[in-house]
Amino acid sequence: MTSVGILNVTGYAGSELARLLHGHPHVQLTGVTGRSAAGKRLPEIFPHLWPIDLPIAESLDGVDVVFSALPHAAAVEQLLPYIDAGVPVIDLSADFRLKRVDEYEAFYKVTHPAPQLLQRAVFGLPELHPDEIAASKLTAVPGCHATGVILALAPAFAAGIIEPAVVADTKTGLSGAGRTLGLNVHFSEADENVAPYALDGHRHLPEMTQELGSLAEAPAPEITFVPHYIPMTRGILSTCYAQLRPGVSLDRAALMRIYRDYYAGAPFVHVSDAPPSTKHVAGTNYCVVHPSIDRRTGRVVVASAIDNLGKGAAGAAVQCLNVMLGLPETAGLQSLALFP
Amino acid sequence: MTSVGILNVTGYAGSELARLLHGHPHVQLTGVTGRSAAGKRLPEIFPHLWPIDLPIAESLDGVDVVFSALPHAAAVEQLLPYIDAGVPVIDLSADFRLKRVDEYEAFYKVTHPAPQLLQRAVFGLPELHPDEIAASKLTAVPGCHATGVILALAPAFAAGIIEPAVVADTKTGLSGAGRTLGLNVHFSEADENVAPYALDGHRHLPEMTQELGSLAEAPAPEITFVPHYIPMTRGILSTCYAQLRPGVSLDRAALMRIYRDYYAGAPFVHVSDAPPSTKHVAGTNYCVVHPSIDRRTGRVVVASAIDNLGKGAAGAAVQCLNVMLGLPETAGLQSLALFP
Amino acid sequence: MTSVGILNVTGYAGSELARLLHGHPHVQLTGVTGRSAAGKRLPEIFPHLWPIDLPIAESLDGVDVVFSALPHAAAVEQLLPYIDAGVPVIDLSADFRLKRVDEYEAFYKVTHPAPQLLQRAVFGLPELHPDEIAASKLTAVPGCHATGVILALAPAFAAGIIEPAVVADTKTGLSGAGRTLGLNVHFSEADENVAPYALDGHRHLPEMTQELGSLAEAPAPEITFVPHYIPMTRGILSTCYAQLRPGVSLDRAALMRIYRDYYAGAPFVHVSDAPPSTKHVAGTNYCVVHPSIDRRTGRVVVASAIDNLGKGAAGAAVQCLNVMLGLPETAGLQSLALFP
Amino acid sequence: MTSVGILNVTGYAGSELARLLHGHPHVQLTGVTGRSAAGKRLPEIFPHLWPIDLPIAESLDGVDVVFSALPHAAAVEQLLPYIDAGVPVIDLSADFRLKRVDEYEAFYKVTHPAPQLLQRAVFGLPELHPDEIAASKLTAVPGCHATGVILALAPAFAAGIIEPAVVADTKTGLSGAGRTLGLNVHFSEADENVAPYALDGHRHLPEMTQELGSLAEAPAPEITFVPHYIPMTRGILSTCYAQLRPGVSLDRAALMRIYRDYYAGAPFVHVSDAPPSTKHVAGTNYCVVHPSIDRRTGRVVVASAIDNLGKGAAGAAVQCLNVMLGLPETAGLQSLALFP
Repeated sequence: MTSVGILNVTGYAGSELARLLHGHPHVQLTGVTGRSAAGKRLPEIFPHLWPIDLPIAESLDGVDVVFSALPHAAAVEQLLPYIDAGVPVIDLSADFRLKRVDEYEAFYKVTHPAPQLLQRAVFGLPELHPDEIAASKLTAVPGCHATGVILALAPAFAAGIIEPAVVADTKTGLSGAGRTLGLNVHFSEADENVAPYALDGHRHLPEMTQELGSLAEAPAPEITFVPHYIPMTRGILSTCYAQLRPGVSLDRAALMRIYRDYYAGAPFVHVSDAPPSTKHVAGTNYCVVHPSIDRRTGRVVVASAIDNLGKGAAGAAVQCLNVMLGLPETAGLQSLALFP
Repeated sequence: MTSVGILNVTGYAGSELARLLHGHPHVQLTGVTGRSAAGKRLPEIFPHLWPIDLPIAESLDGVDVVFSALPHAAAVEQLLPYIDAGVPVIDLSADFRLKRVDEYEAFYKVTHPAPQLLQRAVFGLPELHPDEIAASKLTAVPGCHATGVILALAPAFAAGIIEPAVVADTKTGLSGAGRTLGLNVHFSEADENVAPYALDGHRHLPEMTQELGSLAEAPAPEITFVPHYIPMTRGILSTCYAQLRPGVSLDRAALMRIYRDYYAGAPFVHVSDAPPSTKHVAGTNYCVVHPSIDRRTGRVVVASAIDNLGKGAAGAAVQCLNVMLGLPETAGLQSLALFP
Repeated sequence: MTSVGILNVTGYAGSELARLLHGHPHVQLTGVTGRSAAGKRLPEIFPHLWPIDLPIAESLDGVDVVFSALPHAAAVEQLLPYIDAGVPVIDLSADFRLKRVDEYEAFYKVTHPAPQLLQRAVFGLPELHPDEIAASKLTAVPGCHATGVILALAPAFAAGIIEPAVVADTKTGLSGAGRTLGLNVHFSEADENVAPYALDGHRHLPEMTQELGSLAEAPAPEITFVPHYIPMTRGILSTCYAQLRPGVSLDRAALMRIYRDYYAGAPFVHVSDAPPSTKHVAGTNYCVVHPSIDRRTGRVVVASAIDNLGKGAAGAAVQCLNVMLGLPETAGLQSLALFP
Repeated sequence: MTSVGILNVTGYAGSELARLLHGHPHVQLTGVTGRSAAGKRLPEIFPHLWPIDLPIAESLDGVDVVFSALPHAAAVEQLLPYIDAGVPVIDLSADFRLKRVDEYEAFYKVTHPAPQLLQRAVFGLPELHPDEIAASKLTAVPGCHATGVILALAPAFAAGIIEPAVVADTKTGLSGAGRTLGLNVHFSEADENVAPYALDGHRHLPEMTQELGSLAEAPAPEITFVPHYIPMTRGILSTCYAQLRPGVSLDRAALMRIYRDYYAGAPFVHVSDAPPSTKHVAGTNYCVVHPSIDRRTGRVVVASAIDNLGKGAAGAAVQCLNVMLGLPETAGLQSLALFP
């Protein structure tokens, strides 16, 4: 059994990680931290975790792998000692996702304290970077919207069939806004409501550009990305639109083949004949992808569904752990969706 | 007082019409029909309408104006006698929205029984066609998605600032699917879920093309339109994306000015500085429109919010009535949103 | 037109009052206050109120009637000058609901600053106290749970058919918790959840005992009252249980008659043959009451449905205004429910 | 590995059973039936079950244990051959829950085709009947409301501290109504709504009386039971009220001790110091019970939370399987709740 710990267990990504690791056959969760709750025990903060009766400590000691669910900037600071000590690290913040420090600093409005680590860190999407993750000691779990959009478009970019101009319109459950209180997630105002946000540029955008750009031939993708809050707790549905490149002519079956081939070895991506529903992946690490073509306009439309706390955060982190440790990629992640 | 009647009051558009007409200061609802419920009284079908204690009849007699909430094809058949008799008709179905009978027949898979009426009918969007509606005796209330998308993009097309290639991504509450039962609107399956539908071409698409095309210089709009069901009852949020035309350079303030000027005389369109929320228009005939520009890609992004049963159906029908009868445009429609 | 003002418009009861008063044919809303938002305009806090473009002031000047949506303790303090000046006051807090100052102080844990006013104040339930309200200059709108439970049980207590031991189990939408942020109304935690609260005694309990006790012959009611939060925004469903008194034998029709007679003159109480649904009263001042008998156990079971912000708060306040001013009791309150 | 099959997998209890059995370490799901879908494969009906790629057959062959998720009456008919053949059977319908055939026939309005089996069948609540279930070949999983109410009150009845007069008020998510379509579970009508139902006697009532009566000294419990539909998918919150018996005086700590002692050996019942939330048990086989005392009235108030498809149906069925087969009671049931 590998001993693992979680920095900042007190948010939703942290508590979901605790839930998943508790059921993992090859690892043992031995320590958790959470500044605001230090001194309490985990079930005092999350009653549903009552069998995980760990104290919430100030720091992690003697763990074989460190997960961090800290917010950006705080993550890199607290993780540096572990990184320096050679402990494998899986970080759920944005601190190690981007290769270009200027993009990080432009979108996050902070100075990166350890930019030299950015080239060493690996973008934690095993569907795109399996070998690098297997060899990595510093893995950055992608942003939830980025995961949904990249998995929707990667096969099309890799096959060179679409233009770089992309519209990505995502609909996310409100657990994506975290456990921090706010009027936009106050039940009475969020219930029966939908609204776009971050119209001036959401922070997950540069991850999409970086990763899809690495798959595409020049020129780089030009993505307009607009997320929307919808009245549910878990799930992201990403609907992505791009024009077929001039001269590319393919029917639905051929498009489906491109997608099925691309994800042939990916145990968590399900290329579906039917439009995806987030409810079919609730609580899981699965992603359902449905590519289609709008014949009238010659546009490819791809929709993907993930659980933002599963494949969009904690599930992906466990998947990365499995790849890093050489375990079966699906270990601890085989539960099916809670439906209905 | 003008006497009005409703054909097929037993769906959500019909019951919402009854609610609005009951509170209208200048008209009186004197008759309602509804085949499946004929012989019962209205409050037996809709308990919330208990003060409107009308019998559900087989037909309407002696009304000054007829509203139809019948489904397409059934509408034209039942309306023909009223049209022939010169009774003003306001139809909420698709039967009189499109000018081109081939488009109607391609999207609705039925033969139109009275195509000669299509040129006489007026598209019931008073923001675009006030004078025609004022002179009309046959007004077709637009589809709910069409209203949201057309109001979002009309100023930009009229100003000639955007390319014809448009992506329209809408998120609709489930009352849009009507009162007919189905697994996709079964609570346990629709709750906590989001999914795209009609990926092969939704029926409201040709209305968008027709109306926005009439505003644009050639070439015609090429719209990819994808609606999504989200877990709420009322409301449509439409997010629309289009590239600025080459050579067009404008900042946010200039874009806002174009929109504010275009809707200067429209009492129900509110051009907003902040992103729209459907909850701010629940139960009303208002439409909130928020235009913005994605600087990185040179795209205009416009979001609009309506209540699909309000401005998207029954509210719009009452607004058309007001214009047709020469009443104040806002009569009976001044309630503010039920918030929260 | 009577000029009215609202103290503390920035919560949900305040904004609902503004919405209702805006549509009232005989009054004009001329001033609003709200300490945290003073200096802003009302639509900056509540965009859905954009046609009510009033400044949020520090105090009200020159109004004919004052509504207060302040929290308890703050209400009495700010209202004293108006009361002293003889201005009619309608208070939505608990400060003037209870006759016994010891009960107030035990439940609210504060010293009442003006206990001498308690005997002068009138409990603002026009179904029980029409004449007193008509003559009142200080009316206390009941708590939302109290309204639901009292209206459910008043006819049975007045008729002397039930024992004093009562169980009142209420299910309330989350707008009842107000606009103040908290984990219990954080969307992700309140959604898909139900839980009881205030098991050690909710503050609306003494109102129920006081009012139902005034209708009953001795001994006084012994009420166990447990409220529950359920995942919706508006509405309270109250289910009340009491044993028939020994020797009382009546069938369902007779029970229904007692209820129909009791509420014969009450325009907002609808005694229904079918179990009530909160959705049938959303946005209204109506209360649906459904009395029944459990034959097996000889218990009366009465369920009532109200909108907690309507008949449970702002609607009731407007109804009291109408009665106090000698206006038609239903003025400004005739909108039907927003359904679905 | 024990081979198991499910009769009628096409409802929510059936699909939840399939999900749980798929993750069970000691059994293998080898067959499923479902008349309406015979000939299809399981993932065609439930896409979230794609790894369980079984054909939906007409009958089960060669399984070691049979689960039935058939409706009552149909269950006993289809199960008779298995029972006769000595195959262990776990039935989720009401057909084998009641000892008295007259009660069954009064509540279910059908003639029981095999009343002789009723005495042989065991009521499948391992917290009350562990040894009988261990020895049983015919186990009847209790109704979901019955489980919530019985677990809430069993310790109090067993300890003889409460009077027989009981009020049980339950609030259930809409998956409890099953997958059959209906207006009461149509999203637009069920959303933002709460209503009581079955006021003339719900079918789970006789199970409560039977089981609690077997624990109590005479006289038998007199239960008024009213269920309510609330707008969520999973979970039942049961709030139960009973008077302390004359002469019984105990404080909260003593009450808690009674409950903790009673459930000391029950791995799935968590006696909690805080009021229960259904969200803390979503997707699990756990039951959270919170006993309290209303000092003012001398009443015990006990609230319990379960997942109606977990401990209320499929989870309980798997727990019974474990007990019947001598497996660890928690095998396959250790997942923690999906929170938030």
